[in-house]
Amino acid sequence: MLNLSLNYKEISKALELFIRQEVTGPGFKKAVLGLSGGIDSALVAGLAARALGPENVTGIRMPYSTSSADSLSDAEKVAVKFGIRMETIPVSDACDGFFATVPDMDHRRKGNVMARLRMVTLFDYSLKTSSLVLGTSNKTELMLGYGTWYGDLASAVNPIGDLYKTQIWELSEFVGVPREVILKKPSADLWAGQTDEQEMGFSYPDADQILYHLVDLRKSDQEISDLGFPVELVRKIRKMVIGSQYKRRMPVIAKLTTRAVGTDFLYPRDWFQKV
Amino acid sequence: MLNLSLNYKEISKALELFIRQEVTGPGFKKAVLGLSGGIDSALVAGLAARALGPENVTGIRMPYSTSSADSLSDAEKVAVKFGIRMETIPVSDACDGFFATVPDMDHRRKGNVMARLRMVTLFDYSLKTSSLVLGTSNKTELMLGYGTWYGDLASAVNPIGDLYKTQIWELSEFVGVPREVILKKPSADLWAGQTDEQEMGFSYPDADQILYHLVDLRKSDQEISDLGFPVELVRKIRKMVIGSQYKRRMPVIAKLTTRAVGTDFLYPRDWFQKV
Repeated sequence: MLNLSLNYKEISKALELFIRQEVTGPGFKKAVLGLSGGIDSALVAGLAARALGPENVTGIRMPYSTSSADSLSDAEKVAVKFGIRMETIPVSDACDGFFATVPDMDHRRKGNVMARLRMVTLFDYSLKTSSLVLGTSNKTELMLGYGTWYGDLASAVNPIGDLYKTQIWELSEFVGVPREVILKKPSADLWAGQTDEQEMGFSYPDADQILYHLVDLRKSDQEISDLGFPVELVRKIRKMVIGSQYKRRMPVIAKLTTRAVGTDFLYPRDWFQKV
Repeated sequence: MLNLSLNYKEISKALELFIRQEVTGPGFKKAVLGLSGGIDSALVAGLAARALGPENVTGIRMPYSTSSADSLSDAEKVAVKFGIRMETIPVSDACDGFFATVPDMDHRRKGNVMARLRMVTLFDYSLKTSSLVLGTSNKTELMLGYGTWYGDLASAVNPIGDLYKTQIWELSEFVGVPREVILKKPSADLWAGQTDEQEMGFSYPDADQILYHLVDLRKSDQEISDLGFPVELVRKIRKMVIGSQYKRRMPVIAKLTTRAVGTDFLYPRDWFQKV
């Protein structure tokens, strides 16, 4: 097992600077994020509060009728801890309107709809208040494709997308995320009792070790398996990474002319600051 | 004025091939798109019908209560013309649920919510039916940022994103889009009487000329103005291109480790086909 720990003092400084630059550079002062009660959004809330001042950060709780009460109270603890503003905008009416129009959805489809309606809520709030939407997907989720395309994976700026879940745990301690939020089992809270690790069939520490060797060190399945992981698990994770690449890209555009979006029109988002 | 016409016989062949490869390559057979009654979705419907066979293409009409009846009947004409399947899934209940939760939205915010709930509808349908969502944003809209991020700009595969609106008009004639659809004023149909050109304050032919010189030929504002366009209009359009770059990118992720999504983990979506 490799130690994936980083220098969290440096990392948290770098991320504060990143948030400040990416938000204030294009002329914004404020940021908004979904506050689920989980560790990822708690960490981003803490980093954003340091970067922008807590008065410029709003965490929005977006419960559906089946969301657990614990999620709501944990989200509140996070807001109180970091001193950020908190609002509650239920997605129940919008979701139920959707479910009434398109009946007989299974868990998976409903989960996607909820994730996307939360995205709609955040982006609407961001337009209303001239804020930017902060993303809260970590590298483990991004690499495994464990998230909804154009849903929770959508944001304007994501400070934690290059940190594996085990690194998120450690950085969260450093930044002061409430202990109960750090200790609870990661869950998308899409149905009662759901946990990420149960749903995926492997633990985050195992996934992170395998992903790190696969993605960052470019090791082969055999080399990773030799470290002590079942080769089937390594293959499964490689397949998840490969099969979810589409979620990490914008729509593919057919290139026909001199300069096409996504092929050779590729400026960074803050290109205008450099003009 | 430069003639922006292309060889539409070649272009339509290339786009059929593109759609077939991008849909069947990852193992899909079917495609779905929103059928608004406008020319862009009509063209994509026609191209997809040729590429995949009309039986494998579904156009979905997604009216809100204020959508015009003409939009619905024009969409039907398109479906009949190209022989594709058509379904109607109103977004009214989901939108109204949303508007009830978050009251007092202006036109602009409501328009974004509608565009995004249509995206949610299409992606849900695509999951249910194992289809890919085809995008229908043209290059003029993409470059001007005239569209909703994570709404109508979101898709899996966009065949027409590198064609300016004036080229869309010509290619649509070639592909056989119904004449009344080609001839009607482009509109997002977000409120009665809305037309794109009125809202933006310039015509598509002017915008396309300016964009082509700006983006494809990299001319300066002065050079473009010398062609006979008011310099204020050229500047306005350049500002729109620059200010909307964020909509043409995925969320910015803070790079911290060896390989970060969006910075140096950049495989194409169909990378797995090459492994």
